[in-house]
Amino acid sequence: MMIRVGIVGATGYTGAGLCRWLVRHPNVDVGFISSKTHAGEPISQIHPHLNQVADGVLVDLDEAVATEVDAVFCCQPHVAGMELVPTLLERGRRVIDLSADFRLDSPQEYEKWYENRHIAPSLLNEKVYGLPEINRERIKDAQLIGLPGCYPTSVILGLAPLLRANLIDPTTIIADCKSGVSGAGRKLSQRTHFVETNENLAPYNIGHSHRHVGEIEQELGKIAGRPARILFSPHLVPLNQGILSTIYVDLTADSTTDELLKIYHDQYHDEPFVRIRDSLPETAFVRETNFLDVIVQAVGDSNRAVVVSAEDNLVKGAFGQGIQCLNIMYGWPETTGLL
Amino acid sequence: MMIRVGIVGATGYTGAGLCRWLVRHPNVDVGFISSKTHAGEPISQIHPHLNQVADGVLVDLDEAVATEVDAVFCCQPHVAGMELVPTLLERGRRVIDLSADFRLDSPQEYEKWYENRHIAPSLLNEKVYGLPEINRERIKDAQLIGLPGCYPTSVILGLAPLLRANLIDPTTIIADCKSGVSGAGRKLSQRTHFVETNENLAPYNIGHSHRHVGEIEQELGKIAGRPARILFSPHLVPLNQGILSTIYVDLTADSTTDELLKIYHDQYHDEPFVRIRDSLPETAFVRETNFLDVIVQAVGDSNRAVVVSAEDNLVKGAFGQGIQCLNIMYGWPETTGLL
Amino acid sequence: MMIRVGIVGATGYTGAGLCRWLVRHPNVDVGFISSKTHAGEPISQIHPHLNQVADGVLVDLDEAVATEVDAVFCCQPHVAGMELVPTLLERGRRVIDLSADFRLDSPQEYEKWYENRHIAPSLLNEKVYGLPEINRERIKDAQLIGLPGCYPTSVILGLAPLLRANLIDPTTIIADCKSGVSGAGRKLSQRTHFVETNENLAPYNIGHSHRHVGEIEQELGKIAGRPARILFSPHLVPLNQGILSTIYVDLTADSTTDELLKIYHDQYHDEPFVRIRDSLPETAFVRETNFLDVIVQAVGDSNRAVVVSAEDNLVKGAFGQGIQCLNIMYGWPETTGLL
Amino acid sequence: MMIRVGIVGATGYTGAGLCRWLVRHPNVDVGFISSKTHAGEPISQIHPHLNQVADGVLVDLDEAVATEVDAVFCCQPHVAGMELVPTLLERGRRVIDLSADFRLDSPQEYEKWYENRHIAPSLLNEKVYGLPEINRERIKDAQLIGLPGCYPTSVILGLAPLLRANLIDPTTIIADCKSGVSGAGRKLSQRTHFVETNENLAPYNIGHSHRHVGEIEQELGKIAGRPARILFSPHLVPLNQGILSTIYVDLTADSTTDELLKIYHDQYHDEPFVRIRDSLPETAFVRETNFLDVIVQAVGDSNRAVVVSAEDNLVKGAFGQGIQCLNIMYGWPETTGLL
Repeated sequence: MMIRVGIVGATGYTGAGLCRWLVRHPNVDVGFISSKTHAGEPISQIHPHLNQVADGVLVDLDEAVATEVDAVFCCQPHVAGMELVPTLLERGRRVIDLSADFRLDSPQEYEKWYENRHIAPSLLNEKVYGLPEINRERIKDAQLIGLPGCYPTSVILGLAPLLRANLIDPTTIIADCKSGVSGAGRKLSQRTHFVETNENLAPYNIGHSHRHVGEIEQELGKIAGRPARILFSPHLVPLNQGILSTIYVDLTADSTTDELLKIYHDQYHDEPFVRIRDSLPETAFVRETNFLDVIVQAVGDSNRAVVVSAEDNLVKGAFGQGIQCLNIMYGWPETTGLL
Repeated sequence: MMIRVGIVGATGYTGAGLCRWLVRHPNVDVGFISSKTHAGEPISQIHPHLNQVADGVLVDLDEAVATEVDAVFCCQPHVAGMELVPTLLERGRRVIDLSADFRLDSPQEYEKWYENRHIAPSLLNEKVYGLPEINRERIKDAQLIGLPGCYPTSVILGLAPLLRANLIDPTTIIADCKSGVSGAGRKLSQRTHFVETNENLAPYNIGHSHRHVGEIEQELGKIAGRPARILFSPHLVPLNQGILSTIYVDLTADSTTDELLKIYHDQYHDEPFVRIRDSLPETAFVRETNFLDVIVQAVGDSNRAVVVSAEDNLVKGAFGQGIQCLNIMYGWPETTGLL
Repeated sequence: MMIRVGIVGATGYTGAGLCRWLVRHPNVDVGFISSKTHAGEPISQIHPHLNQVADGVLVDLDEAVATEVDAVFCCQPHVAGMELVPTLLERGRRVIDLSADFRLDSPQEYEKWYENRHIAPSLLNEKVYGLPEINRERIKDAQLIGLPGCYPTSVILGLAPLLRANLIDPTTIIADCKSGVSGAGRKLSQRTHFVETNENLAPYNIGHSHRHVGEIEQELGKIAGRPARILFSPHLVPLNQGILSTIYVDLTADSTTDELLKIYHDQYHDEPFVRIRDSLPETAFVRETNFLDVIVQAVGDSNRAVVVSAEDNLVKGAFGQGIQCLNIMYGWPETTGLL
Repeated sequence: MMIRVGIVGATGYTGAGLCRWLVRHPNVDVGFISSKTHAGEPISQIHPHLNQVADGVLVDLDEAVATEVDAVFCCQPHVAGMELVPTLLERGRRVIDLSADFRLDSPQEYEKWYENRHIAPSLLNEKVYGLPEINRERIKDAQLIGLPGCYPTSVILGLAPLLRANLIDPTTIIADCKSGVSGAGRKLSQRTHFVETNENLAPYNIGHSHRHVGEIEQELGKIAGRPARILFSPHLVPLNQGILSTIYVDLTADSTTDELLKIYHDQYHDEPFVRIRDSLPETAFVRETNFLDVIVQAVGDSNRAVVVSAEDNLVKGAFGQGIQCLNIMYGWPETTGLL
């Protein structure tokens, strides 16, 4: 079975990644690629690596909306996401939205973290949070997927087994996360200017202030069955792709590393994209893959454990996870086009 | 007043840094530079950047010991440090040892963390731990300085004000530290092979296992007046120089960020090499300087605070701190040769 | 049709690349992977990114030789290549050798450049130099492929159209080449130690001394029909993968850029892995692909032209080209497993 | 003797470098630092590394012009340079201009390369091209220094000895130059966005099109006593600071490497900032120094030689050379504040 998909916002890093990866997906034809600022240009003009790999001319948003496709990946920044999605749904497209607009459950939370009123609040109930390892069943029939953020994917999958097993206090979690620079997107900023990022290591929005805090606490809370509270410290590291999260938790019962690892193995045993490692994860091991690598260690003589997870922020943290959702939505093997 | 100093192990990164920086020190003549493996060669053969900057021919250890100097910087790895230092002291040299051999107070702790018996245990009592902001008075008359490790400097100076003010629980500290690769030295290893470190982010020895844990807990405990316990997570980051420590503490009393910052200002006000910042420290801001930059933030709606400190692991974390100690030992202004 | 292949020396960068890429080749089963130093270990122990991607246990050389396979990729360093290849051929394997041992045509040239006597000189006549764009017909029936070096691939493919068109003087070529660090392999050296390569740019073996000079001149000479002479300047650049060659030639007749480009289009029109670009190639555009990107520009008011080519040194410069040869040898579409 | 200097455009990389380095210059007080966009802010707000090193509040251009100083470093981009300089000269300041506005001798050449009419053409005759190794005598009395570009410094100093000795053809020079990213300044561009520069190697403006071609040919021509012609290939390399130039020349007479080196030693013997090396220069060896490292090699069996030079593009290629000129202008030892 073949479907046709469209990619809105194809010139950003996640959109370009979709172009490149969907080429090798046996069930997908790309029906359109669109761009606000580059409509009319071949995408290989902006991303020369796509030349002869995923050629195609970018269309504008109107043409994107009018083009008949089965599903659409929306790779725009927040606000632009919610402006477009209702129209696409009305036209019967299934939508996988990579912006932050359909991750939170309540419009109040959205307004709090993104400082904009949500213009399609009813969709917040209908959307499915696109984390397959947590929501696989609901993803199957979803019309609208709100794809998780890169940091949230790494923290939530890192902690889910311990939360489900009721082994940790969900209110005292500390997530010290380190991200490559592509997480900040293609938009220019002094922060991502080569000379100021190279040979530098920079924390930002430490504490309880980064926008991903709301999303992480919401999802951890649902898994735990009670409110979660996270201290979240993102850091910018001079590499292109990769997130490493070092997560500190308070155990509610004495546990050895082996006992903790067993819980991960029990819960993630059949997951095609979670690898439980026997040594510490590193971002290079997951680069350009849809894997999330994870390990857990009890810290001797304390009631604490450390979880370390690694992912490629663009793949498992974004477009790869989107393809994984697509596979689930259409009933294909979950790894189709992803290995 | 001029003194003559010698540098043992001058071809490593800290030794070469000393060569380069001592050139501009107005009170110091370099009496010898030595190397086990490169004796007889000009140092600029191994470190061409020293050409016409700090020329000199490397001597062997025998000649180093025999050369009349006032003070010696020992930049060898551990074990080699304790093998040499007693001889130097007998000959009347004042010694600043950059190895790990004279940082711990007890031979048992040394054996536990470094898996070697200490061969000069009596010196462990005589040595002074060379952290000027903590031990300035004792450094003045020291014959033997055990210079702090790079991670310990960043963690101890990051926490000292809170510990002295009795504001945090010293047993629940978490230090998530990120280091540039020069911290691993010039010795070859797969871990520091360019291709495997570049575009990678790698945690190592996480929990309570890294050798610096003993040193950090010892010193934090002395400042706190009771045993300290640290969960320590070092990470290797693809840059040459710099350590960033993100430190999580439990407050023993409600405190605002302003109240916490005031404590740092009160205690570090006169410190020439501690800069209390009003935004988050980054390693690029301290590169090739002897500064330690630090900030503290209370985390709202919790009893936690986050401290972030940044230093150049080779300078404030090693040879720069050594020069700072030398200045104190000889009664010169503490910043001599360091700005 | 399926064949079984073996990989000797699977733990180096090219061997590991083969493991990873051959997984997605529909006609290939990997019959063995071998290693001298890691026999008995799973390869994912040494290269964790292969976990669940290309698992397998490394065997020793004896078992490698004894295992029934159709073809073998030999990814060992030079000398080791020629020690093994005759045995494999005797056993009826078709061999693709990635070492330098079967690139040169004469044992004298081999001895001159590699300072070792060649121990299988008769094979130098039988081998086919595995550059598909030049030797496609001969590759079809080859029992032994000597796979080109990374620099030679980039220089020879960059110049072949001009040489065939008899448009340049083959004795005055200058190739200024810049390579990522993986070209130096996984073996440790001070030169590839992170701290000394990062934030550095280092020429080496400039002039007429690098080992690839002999190979480049041999092949350019064959294409030109008369002896070629090259001035070759390799440089080490702080990135993992990629070679960029900037090549300067003297034109034998007045030509415009358009005329020169037409020659490239005429000759490379059907080549699946050569992309003639309309702006300057960059290594990021070919990263992790088997493409060689190339452009040519006449320099106004002079009799000179500049050719710029870019490739991934590990892929088109090594294992990808090996798979391309394999596809030709077995009559499969040349891009099988390579897109 | 003390003088007061001002720095116009202090927030760019060269301006900030001057702030940092002039602090240790014993004869200089900084009278003002100015910025168009950040007037009123402390410079340490924009460049936190200057905190407690070179503090100061930025003034606007009017205040800069009105402030009494002896000399002014103008660190603005081209056009802005020539708009300001006449005013400063009228007020009696000696000016060292780091823009491209006072490097070329003729307004026609300026208009050709910079696509702007020159608004102070008479100053082009009065200015002195600030390359001490070439123009030391004229610099002494200069009121206006046009400081050389970063690439020109590296190419001109690389070739001057051979041109003066009349040993090379000045019309067939090829300069293949590689630069770190700070050469492109602090202004944002897709080209210098971290993700697109990191792990990439990019040539640009190859042939006879880069703006520095006019400047290089002008100065080489003056040294040679006849018109020079250069083929110039700049490349962007993923490091912050450093230029490496690999320069190919045709010898007019048979010469050995030793003979060529002797010419360099003869001519550069007394130069405090030129180091003739006995192995190949690398950019790391000159990082954060005012040295230009250079080597020359005859290429056996050809009439060619290769010159390799390395400099820090921000120091010897910009502000360091500016301080060197200042020292000459005021009769201080040329290395003052530069070692």
